[in-house]
Amino acid sequence: MSIEKKLSSQLIYQGKAVSLIVDIVKMPDGRETTREVVRHSECIAVVAIDEHDNIIMERQFRYSVGKSLLEIPAGGIEHGENPVNAVRRELQEEIGYFPGKLENMGGFYSSPGYGTEYLHCFLATDLKPSQLIAEDTAEIELLRIPPIEIPKLIASGEICDAKSIAALLTYLYVRTNK
Amino acid sequence: MSIEKKLSSQLIYQGKAVSLIVDIVKMPDGRETTREVVRHSECIAVVAIDEHDNIIMERQFRYSVGKSLLEIPAGGIEHGENPVNAVRRELQEEIGYFPGKLENMGGFYSSPGYGTEYLHCFLATDLKPSQLIAEDTAEIELLRIPPIEIPKLIASGEICDAKSIAALLTYLYVRTNK
Repeated sequence: MSIEKKLSSQLIYQGKAVSLIVDIVKMPDGRETTREVVRHSECIAVVAIDEHDNIIMERQFRYSVGKSLLEIPAGGIEHGENPVNAVRRELQEEIGYFPGKLENMGGFYSSPGYGTEYLHCFLATDLKPSQLIAEDTAEIELLRIPPIEIPKLIASGEICDAKSIAALLTYLYVRTNK
Repeated sequence: MSIEKKLSSQLIYQGKAVSLIVDIVKMPDGRETTREVVRHSECIAVVAIDEHDNIIMERQFRYSVGKSLLEIPAGGIEHGENPVNAVRRELQEEIGYFPGKLENMGGFYSSPGYGTEYLHCFLATDLKPSQLIAEDTAEIELLRIPPIEIPKLIASGEICDAKSIAALLTYLYVRTNK
């Protein structure tokens, strides 16, 4: 598989969450084209199972899409953090639990056509109450959902977030096939 | 669920594939913050089944992540196009088939934390050879994969694209539960 060679690179914007880079590249057939790249830190996304075997999910307003979405806990990996520590921090901040057990479930790119964002996916069990206060989680509503409800919530469109669908169905169906 | 009110909006960049907008918003608790929004057209993503019940997938170089990924056919909806017509065009351009039958399988946002992109997800069957030439599909390698291999390819990380994992597992497991 041939790759594309960078000829020039311009940083258009450096923001809080994303930055935008526009590169000129030479394609394998020799033509030149523009590639717009949205840079985002690596992230973690977590299927967290509570003491009653329910899946803990969050409903929060998402400004970019103008509505509230039902999602699994997720967040960016901070500078100097590894994915496991990011999961521990995010779960304490967002759902108020420390995960006694974490298992890696692989991961995925959210929009590889233009974005760098990669999500490391984890299964969190043996949850113990433990709260870290985070500034911007006041508006997160927590829900505890029986696993059997998940396919219905996806089929109905109630869960319409790619990372949540990918991680939840990987947990429900792929791990058991290994 | 409270929403966030836009106070000002600045278009930072208007590109080929994405545009970047930075808004100042008032949060429900009265504080002001910045929201960076990556605008992208709505897209389609397709689970396409060939005459031998294999799933047609593509391997292509993705500049933003610097590697080749195994993905289902997908693409942007063009101006004036509806999702069904976008699926018909993309399948002819990318895999060389016209879909005799299309079924809607819902859809999802790819990165709702900062992006507007929504993917309409379809199942395409009854494929008939039909080619539309597209400029930038020369570097796409087609693969035909038995459905039973899909969970293994996800578990191994060979398929590591959120839309592909979400759509493929929805096809394999969610539709049968409805």
